[in-house]
Amino acid sequence: MKEKILLKAQKAKEASRFIAKASTELKNKIIIRMAEYLRKSKDELIEANKLDIASAGEKGLSKALIDRLTLNEKRISEMVKGLEEIVALPDPVGEITKMWLRPNGMQVGKMRVPIGVIGVIYEARPNVTVDVTGLCIKAGNAVVLRGGSEAINSNVALVKILKEALKDEGMHEGVVTYLDIPSREAVLEMIKLEGIIDLIIPRGGEGLIRTVTENSRIPVLKHYKGVCHVFVDREADLKMAEEICFNAKVQRPATCNAMETMLVDETIAKKFLPNMLRRFQQAGVEIRGCEKTREIYPKIKDVKEEDFYREYLDLILNVKVVKDIDEAMEHIAKYGSAHSDAIVTRNYDKAMRFLREVDSSAVFVNASTRLNDGYQFGLGAEIGISTDKIHARGPMGLEELTCTKFIVFGSGQLRH
Amino acid sequence: MKEKILLKAQKAKEASRFIAKASTELKNKIIIRMAEYLRKSKDELIEANKLDIASAGEKGLSKALIDRLTLNEKRISEMVKGLEEIVALPDPVGEITKMWLRPNGMQVGKMRVPIGVIGVIYEARPNVTVDVTGLCIKAGNAVVLRGGSEAINSNVALVKILKEALKDEGMHEGVVTYLDIPSREAVLEMIKLEGIIDLIIPRGGEGLIRTVTENSRIPVLKHYKGVCHVFVDREADLKMAEEICFNAKVQRPATCNAMETMLVDETIAKKFLPNMLRRFQQAGVEIRGCEKTREIYPKIKDVKEEDFYREYLDLILNVKVVKDIDEAMEHIAKYGSAHSDAIVTRNYDKAMRFLREVDSSAVFVNASTRLNDGYQFGLGAEIGISTDKIHARGPMGLEELTCTKFIVFGSGQLRH
Repeated sequence: MKEKILLKAQKAKEASRFIAKASTELKNKIIIRMAEYLRKSKDELIEANKLDIASAGEKGLSKALIDRLTLNEKRISEMVKGLEEIVALPDPVGEITKMWLRPNGMQVGKMRVPIGVIGVIYEARPNVTVDVTGLCIKAGNAVVLRGGSEAINSNVALVKILKEALKDEGMHEGVVTYLDIPSREAVLEMIKLEGIIDLIIPRGGEGLIRTVTENSRIPVLKHYKGVCHVFVDREADLKMAEEICFNAKVQRPATCNAMETMLVDETIAKKFLPNMLRRFQQAGVEIRGCEKTREIYPKIKDVKEEDFYREYLDLILNVKVVKDIDEAMEHIAKYGSAHSDAIVTRNYDKAMRFLREVDSSAVFVNASTRLNDGYQFGLGAEIGISTDKIHARGPMGLEELTCTKFIVFGSGQLRH
Repeated sequence: MKEKILLKAQKAKEASRFIAKASTELKNKIIIRMAEYLRKSKDELIEANKLDIASAGEKGLSKALIDRLTLNEKRISEMVKGLEEIVALPDPVGEITKMWLRPNGMQVGKMRVPIGVIGVIYEARPNVTVDVTGLCIKAGNAVVLRGGSEAINSNVALVKILKEALKDEGMHEGVVTYLDIPSREAVLEMIKLEGIIDLIIPRGGEGLIRTVTENSRIPVLKHYKGVCHVFVDREADLKMAEEICFNAKVQRPATCNAMETMLVDETIAKKFLPNMLRRFQQAGVEIRGCEKTREIYPKIKDVKEEDFYREYLDLILNVKVVKDIDEAMEHIAKYGSAHSDAIVTRNYDKAMRFLREVDSSAVFVNASTRLNDGYQFGLGAEIGISTDKIHARGPMGLEELTCTKFIVFGSGQLRH
């Protein structure tokens, strides 16, 4: 197994040099060809997917997981649309982001270049196979994919199509490499291939991500969890605050950018909370409040300190009344996961302070945390969200799949 | 020991929140104060340094190492000047590097933010203590320093001064933290503090860097070695090529950006090599040539394949005659270390191809590889050179000590 994984990864590395220097036109052609083949092969894909769904049913996997696993016409169209959007995005590779003149006459600049080989480890969703491949190719990278074993038939069928598109356009097939070895050991081998794979992006539950991060010899970009906050300042437009908080919690509670804790300035707590909490309860949200919250609105559970660290991914919400923006930011720094945090306020100074001082991958003024997303930000698709401190924070799109190198236009300059 | 390191690192993390939100003015004041104290304390520093030099002498350490270890008036002035240059550089923190409007009316942007706590592991040079501290503070980071045991007295004296400056300006002293535990185990403990230290930068020999990279649970930015090339194209200005190659090899051969292999287009080899190689030999360079080189210039050693992988750090040079730019770029991709590579040519297309396709931290047209350096590029000091594929390639200055987060100016936007 070790041998097989190494060989596949080496082929990907070989291929990465070809895709790195491919023209934008060629990369777009490949992606368009992929989209065409997906559209044409939808019946085969749905057939392959049925095998996965059947075996998931036999294993008694959860409904939610089977839903994530399912490929249908609608989802295939979405994948096609995703690829077409990637084609429409500007090519980041070769962009000179800065250029300056030195006193000795040399022009020094920074040029965007592909990273090389990206390893992506994910779970049930087969659409990740396609989204990630499109992004990696457009950014000039080869990709080594390792999807969940429950989606193996779907992923193998998808990768077959993606590879056909590469072949049609004369591109090295190693650009898209799939590790079709279902055991967990395959992941552990893959993340040791330092010098072959350049970056690992794990997507999935916290357990998977911790295992990958703790064992990887390759740099990893990831987020463990999303413990997101909305702070309703005393100078908020309370109607706007209500809409933002409701959207952040209820619109899709199982996502990483949904709100887990609502922080409310004590000055407006009495005015704001009753309506807001009633509306949450009507939407089926279980509320866990601090003492002050329960004084104002008694019909709710008590929040425990450990609740503030939790990512519920469900219709459960912590509510805490705070003295001011400082206490709110202290709370976010202590309990948050540096994912998505928002302030609702009309006060300019507080808005700017919150933006500057809250150290999260995305910080919002007067908008819902649910908007922390590659599509919403206009990056096209995203390959994942990072809450790490280096390379990229927030949704990672094409730019985040590149790095920069220094380039120098000289005319004979020497070092003295 | 474990306990002590953890406590120190936690204090640095606590401090990092204060320096992260410090104004440019305050950060500059701190750095100016550091420079003042250095100037005033030069006698004490030289005394402390003498202890290190004496004990290095007793241990029989090499002359080169003792030279790197030595602090004298000139070197202290250079450190002061280095700090003053950092003060003059623009503050990267808070810069909004991009901002764009989404169809729903929200403004999305990217803001530069400090990384947090930077761990720097280095060897004999005490000036690193000061350079690195200045850069980290200006970029809003706390720094945990771990210098070589041979410089312990010098470093402790330097850190005392740096901390006094912090105190004078009312800044948390944990911003500059020194691990004064000489054992190698201290390094191994330090690089396990994931979640406390955010980034590790090791500087020194390949052995140290490999140990750090293989054992770190924290992201590491580094370069193992510099196997740098100059390719003399058939359309080069041969006089310019001679000057660049000579400078790249001879000006300071013990540095990572010195040339190790000269690649020469076969079309001009006969014309170029005899003069060039004679000049190298006159400068004391040992030449190891390929077969074709030795046909043209017989009085040299034979180059072995393994020589092409070596970083000599000395007056030794490999010379290889290649068919064309393609063979040259193949050679660089196979044997190089992605550090610094140059082409000398008058041909526009080849210059642009080389810039685009050679995947090194800095790629030069018609300039010496020796110029790959933070000062030379105008970044001010540098904290090290990275040949990694993510976050930063090449010399790392202030910008490279920050990351970006997404910021959103909304007016009530929700996710639908």
